[in-house]
Formats: sequence, structure tokens, C-alpha cells
Amino acid sequence: MDIKMNVAELNIFAQEVFPQVSDQLHVEEITDQGCIIRWKVDASNIRPGGTISGPTMFSAADVAAYLATLSRIGPEALAVTTNCSIDFMRKPAAGVDIIADCRLLKLGRVLSVSDVLIYSEGEPKPVARASLTYSIPPK
Amino acid sequence: MDIKMNVAELNIFAQEVFPQVSDQLHVEEITDQGCIIRWKVDASNIRPGGTISGPTMFSAADVAAYLATLSRIGPEALAVTTNCSIDFMRKPAAGVDIIADCRLLKLGRVLSVSDVLIYSEGEPKPVARASLTYSIPPK
Amino acid sequence: MDIKMNVAELNIFAQEVFPQVSDQLHVEEITDQGCIIRWKVDASNIRPGGTISGPTMFSAADVAAYLATLSRIGPEALAVTTNCSIDFMRKPAAGVDIIADCRLLKLGRVLSVSDVLIYSEGEPKPVARASLTYSIPPK
Amino acid sequence: MDIKMNVAELNIFAQEVFPQVSDQLHVEEITDQGCIIRWKVDASNIRPGGTISGPTMFSAADVAAYLATLSRIGPEALAVTTNCSIDFMRKPAAGVDIIADCRLLKLGRVLSVSDVLIYSEGEPKPVARASLTYSIPPK
Repeated sequence: MDIKMNVAELNIFAQEVFPQVSDQLHVEEITDQGCIIRWKVDASNIRPGGTISGPTMFSAADVAAYLATLSRIGPEALAVTTNCSIDFMRKPAAGVDIIADCRLLKLGRVLSVSDVLIYSEGEPKPVARASLTYSIPPK
Repeated sequence: MDIKMNVAELNIFAQEVFPQVSDQLHVEEITDQGCIIRWKVDASNIRPGGTISGPTMFSAADVAAYLATLSRIGPEALAVTTNCSIDFMRKPAAGVDIIADCRLLKLGRVLSVSDVLIYSEGEPKPVARASLTYSIPPK
Repeated sequence: MDIKMNVAELNIFAQEVFPQVSDQLHVEEITDQGCIIRWKVDASNIRPGGTISGPTMFSAADVAAYLATLSRIGPEALAVTTNCSIDFMRKPAAGVDIIADCRLLKLGRVLSVSDVLIYSEGEPKPVARASLTYSIPPK
Repeated sequence: MDIKMNVAELNIFAQEVFPQVSDQLHVEEITDQGCIIRWKVDASNIRPGGTISGPTMFSAADVAAYLATLSRIGPEALAVTTNCSIDFMRKPAAGVDIIADCRLLKLGRVLSVSDVLIYSEGEPKPVARASLTYSIPPK
């Protein structure tokens, strides 16, 4: 799969389309199969029990799959999630960032399918896993 | 399934455990099988294309399943989501609230399983569906 | 949603396209939102512990979603499942048939989304729930 | 994670607990993170369009996750699937076996979570992906 947007371009694009979370979201790396993003955890992401909220981890997985797809097809802001399945496996550490590592499993003409492992930074075992399908709008 | 918390009690509880979204979240009704909640959409919930963001719909589904579970077992703040599968089916209307209608399919000793239909208020067809598993902490 | 195939037509169609399970599969009813099918359990469906196997319940959900879709669009044998999420909630009774009750939540031009509740015949509580997406081939 | 059952032991165990598919199922390898199984495709696995049926791929994913779990905890025949999410991404080749490569993402005291990539033998791109949760019975 050719790379259509590099890390710098993805970060500029992400700032534009996700202004609400522009301080929290950072593309770290484009990988052979997808990309890795960082979600900078702040107080809005904490839930009862001192852990990271489920919606925060969903957001990180969703954005990672979106940006992994766009890194290969170019800036199609209107790609939309059609399905996500997510398993929350371990309690994330509250004081550290979340790292989402996404690999594209299929990049078709109208759909992408990817999976994501989510880590608390510095921890070897994933805290969550997700799979996502994105619908790619016709040109 | 006996009701352990009524609408007023659930709303007070929700305000306490979700202070970040206390302005947006409102329990509307306890139903025979679960509960109905309203998510008051604001600017933070909008994404490219003028629609409601996926994380907002995930949040509404997640909170609805949590509160439906607690309405039957009482205030167990530490119940945690272990799995969610969500399908985004239609573009939600941007200017209206989201209504999440949750029914409990199983309420066991350690797990609850529920499904949720999410609507744009006033529209007959659901914009999303979700199923969720919650892990209930031991007493 | 108009009905394009009635119960008799669906049963004839199902016998043709699923010859391996033609003895086990029976469409019982077309409902307002989808259809109800029966899976006649036999020895091939039993797994360790004297219960119905997961693949049997997956099959029942998959066929129910397929036939519910075709009941509204006509005999498109090549519609294919693209996603299924299934929760196994209770141990099914080993000696009774499985009933799968499917409702179509979205019937678009290229995709259908449905959910299915699976029961052991005669029991009020579902043993499993599933959601499925079918891709509908272009005409 | 210690290995409690090797390839030969897993194969003997699988033959006993899955007598209906004992001719079709073979454990190929125990890997660092899980195991790889082969599903020998026969006529019972084919569906309209000359492809492998969805239930066959579900079965392969389900068995792979079961055996990967047991390879680390020992022969607990009564472990049961509680959830599966599966994406069917590409049309499998009809004439070749299916290979399911499972990795355990979490092995807890009461639950295992794993994901599986399913391949048509000899093809580099996966035809399906699945994630599964198994409930492990108390000792």
C-alpha cells in the first residue's frame, strides 16, 4: 500500500478535522501496516475508579483507524465508521498517555477494515483491542 | 427484574459519576427491559460533515447500558464495560438530541449483556445500534 | 419495507441454496421487521457439556439475517455476510430446537444491518444475540 | 505464558471433544502468542458462489481461540465462548484449506481474549479476522 500522507501531513490534517481534541491527538509513526497515534490523557478522560474512560479508548481506536486509512488513500475527511467492536481487557494507568497501534487488514475501494491495539504508554500488555470498518466515499 | 434505582436516583447518581458530561446526560425513563436516556448534543459532539461524532454515540450507548444495569442492581459505580460492538447505520441529524433506548438481555451475577438503539430525537429509524457487556464487581 | 418473498418462497429458496442443512432449516414466519426461523437441532450440533455448539447458533443467526434481507429484496443468493458480532448468554437446552428471531434495522442499497435473538424453543429468555451486516451485490 | 499442552496433546484432545469435525481439524503449531490450526475444507463447507461458508470460518476461529486458551491452561473442556466479533474481508479460495492463526491478548483467571486471522492456505492476505472471549470455568 502506497503512502499518500506522511506523519507531518496527517498531523496537520488531524488538527483541522478534530479541532475539539487537537491538543490530545498526535500521530507518532506510519508503520508498514498502518500507523501509531498518541492520545494525551487529560482530566476529561478519567472515569470512576481513576481509570481512562471507555469513550476515550474508543476515540483513540477510531481516530487511529481513520488516519491509517487516510495515510493510504489521501485526505478524505468524509470517510465514516460503520462498525466497531472493542474489548476492554485491562485497567489503563490513569497518569500516562494512550498509544494506539493500528494495522490495516483490508483496504478496498469502498471499505477499510483494521484492528487496533491500545496500550498505556510504557506497558507491554494492551489495555484494549478494537476492530473497525470505515466506509470510503466515492470520488 | 426488580427496580433498585428510580429515574430521579439514577439522574443524581449519573451527575456524580460523570461530572464531565453532567450537562449533556439525562435519564428519561426506566422501561420494562432497561432504560431510555437523552444525550443533549453540543458543539463538542459534532464532526466533519455536520454530523454527530462516533465517540458521542458510543458514549450514549455505554452510559445507557451502565445505567440500565445499575437500575436493577443498585449504585455499583465500578461496573466496567468489557465489550462493545456498535454499528453506525444512518447519519444523525446534527441539531437534535440523541435518544438511547437500552434493553437488558441478561443480568447475571458477574455480567450484564444489553443492546441499545440510538435515535436522533423525533426520527423513527435508529441511527446506530450497539451491544455491550458490563462486568459487575463482586460485593 | 415491501415483502418480495413469502414464507413458502423463502423455504423453497433456502432448500436450494443450503442443501447441506436443508433438513434442519425452516422459515416459520415473516414478521413486521424481519423473519423467524427454526433450526432443527441434531447430533451434529451438540458440543461438550451437552449444549448446542457456537457454530450452530452462528449459523442460525446468519441464515436468519440472510433470509430476512432476501424477504425484502428478492432472491439474491450472492449476498454475503461482512460482519457478525454474537454474544452467547445462556446455555441452550440440548434437546429442543433453536428459534432465531431477526429484525432488519437498516436495508440500504448495498448493505443490510440486522439483529437476531436466539431462543431455545419454549424458553422466554434468549440464549444468544447477534448483529450482522450483509453486503448486497449490485444488480 | 507457560505451555500446558503441546501440539500432539492438543490434537488428541481436539479429536475427543470435537468428534464431528475430527477429520477436518488439525493443530499445526503452538506459537509464542497462541497457536495455528488448519481446517481441512470439504464439500460441507462450501456455500453459494463457490466459496467457504461463514459458519466454517466462524468454527475455525472459535476452535483456534479455544485451543490457544487450553494450550496455556490445560484441558478444560468446558470453557465456553461468550462473545465473538468476526469480519469477512475477502472471498476465500474454495479448493484450499483454511489456516487460523490465533494470538492470546489476555489470559485472566476467568476470561481469555484472543484475536484470529484466517487465511486461505498459500495466500498472503487474510480472508477474515475475529476476536473472541472465552469464559474459563472455576476449578
